[in-house]
Amino acid sequence: MSLDDMAVKPHDALAAHLSADMDAVNTLIRERMASEHAPRIPEVTAHLVEAGGKRLRPMLTLAAAQLCGYAGPYHVHLAATVEFIHTATLLHDDVVDESGQRRGRPTANLLWDNKSSILVGDYLFSRSFQLMVETGSLRVLDILANASATIAEGEVLQLTASQDLATTEAIYLQVVRGKTAALFSAATEVGGVIAGADEAHVKALFEYGDALGVAFQIVDDLLDMQGDPNATGKNVGDDFRERKLTLPLIKAVANADDEERAFWQRTIEKGQQKEGDLEHAIALLHKHGALEDTRQEALAWSRKAVAAIETLPAHPVRDMLSQISDYVVSRIN
Amino acid sequence: MSLDDMAVKPHDALAAHLSADMDAVNTLIRERMASEHAPRIPEVTAHLVEAGGKRLRPMLTLAAAQLCGYAGPYHVHLAATVEFIHTATLLHDDVVDESGQRRGRPTANLLWDNKSSILVGDYLFSRSFQLMVETGSLRVLDILANASATIAEGEVLQLTASQDLATTEAIYLQVVRGKTAALFSAATEVGGVIAGADEAHVKALFEYGDALGVAFQIVDDLLDMQGDPNATGKNVGDDFRERKLTLPLIKAVANADDEERAFWQRTIEKGQQKEGDLEHAIALLHKHGALEDTRQEALAWSRKAVAAIETLPAHPVRDMLSQISDYVVSRIN
Repeated sequence: MSLDDMAVKPHDALAAHLSADMDAVNTLIRERMASEHAPRIPEVTAHLVEAGGKRLRPMLTLAAAQLCGYAGPYHVHLAATVEFIHTATLLHDDVVDESGQRRGRPTANLLWDNKSSILVGDYLFSRSFQLMVETGSLRVLDILANASATIAEGEVLQLTASQDLATTEAIYLQVVRGKTAALFSAATEVGGVIAGADEAHVKALFEYGDALGVAFQIVDDLLDMQGDPNATGKNVGDDFRERKLTLPLIKAVANADDEERAFWQRTIEKGQQKEGDLEHAIALLHKHGALEDTRQEALAWSRKAVAAIETLPAHPVRDMLSQISDYVVSRIN
Repeated sequence: MSLDDMAVKPHDALAAHLSADMDAVNTLIRERMASEHAPRIPEVTAHLVEAGGKRLRPMLTLAAAQLCGYAGPYHVHLAATVEFIHTATLLHDDVVDESGQRRGRPTANLLWDNKSSILVGDYLFSRSFQLMVETGSLRVLDILANASATIAEGEVLQLTASQDLATTEAIYLQVVRGKTAALFSAATEVGGVIAGADEAHVKALFEYGDALGVAFQIVDDLLDMQGDPNATGKNVGDDFRERKLTLPLIKAVANADDEERAFWQRTIEKGQQKEGDLEHAIALLHKHGALEDTRQEALAWSRKAVAAIETLPAHPVRDMLSQISDYVVSRIN
């Protein structure tokens, strides 16, 4: 089935299928972001949580639990946990990146201040931790503790790796695992674990989430250098201007001659950018086939996600997850 | 016994008594603050962890576990957990307060940058979470998750309460519980829980930590308005300059006449401070007996801590904890 044949986007189809559970997740999120004493907390959180994010991560948890036949109540807690962790990292990321916009609205650090974003992020992280403790599953806690450490480590790694032309594809992959894939894979894995799925299925769910997350981030990085701003809602070249060494750049730097290397040193390492540099950078990516190579890697990760999820028994939710993986790369296909 | 009779400070006596366990805690801390991929993490952490903090919080956990007869290995994990949470909050606090000095050295946000402090703080918080999961005790996880939420909520509350003359003593107490007492009480409580102590003893350990933490913070706030900088290592008036409504100020504001109220509005609410304001503020605190009332409250909390710990069976560690509570208020007695 080609994407043109899809009457409904796979993400929306999954959202419709999970709507009762998602209502419960949203109710729990609103309950737990309250604070009797510090009204600043729900203000800041609501700004972000109600801004209309796609809630993909909590849906992955609900989907995995349903796919594995879970009948208990804790998939809702885990989905809310995952969304709280995500929201906490967004609040901190926007401070670290000095961002002014997120989801088409001013960021919390701009509307309130950096202090509020840091402390409310800490609060949400603690709240996520309370929610997962309520499930009573030490294995779930272990998975989410490890995911949290991977996320934070990836963020620090990105801080030191950006602007450094020595960054390898292996380091890039570690950063991507931290900033995106670790929470995707934890989201699907805990859905299987809470359902008591057998080990092979839990492993497949982990691999699906991991590969989906990596594909998702590579697509994002690729669109930054070749996307149509009208279609993607992103400005082309934001990463370049922020001197981030994403996969297409790493590939072009690896094949650069002396003159090209000097260009990358000036624009990325020294940050001395001038008019026409972005266009020249994109031309270099084309010259070395870096955009096409990157595209192929994203497609391979997407196929890996599909292959992993298809080891699970036939189920309508399994097919929806498979379609989501196709859809993630449809923007570059 | 008066303080002059003490050959060794109670804190040092406890440190000597627990030195084998504290060595194990320090080894574990060094192990777990490592990061294979992001060397920035151990750099930033070592700067703070090796700076010679007193390690009071992890010692409280070790002491509580020993006092309750614990013979297993996990008190070491919990002590390291508590120190990691403390270190993470210091990193974030210094960013929020824009501090340049901590423990007599430049802060991490000054030596590296705010980004590193935020993200390394997140990493340490995740690491603390991994450490506590290893204990396998859901009750311990519940206590520490709740303490983390109280800490973050207290920090946000302080953000909105400072500069607000409507701040009450009840709000002040909530802030103090968040910024100090929540981690003290969790530190002692989990020591009892991991040892399988009976409920009355666990409750007494919680109350000891809670009262000790409140006393500790009130003393700190009092010394800010009346301390001898040579003896305390603190500048007098830092909180006043940062427009923080600490307990002595709240008491003076509550009794202010119109003219005094205008003074507090100008200096604290509007932040328009000029030469001589600190001296006038201190004079107003004396006029209304606010320093003496605050001192009495600190002493009452210290006595409460002693009373709580003395419900536990006789034990050399019990006496050391009791002496620590006396010692905390000795700076104002």
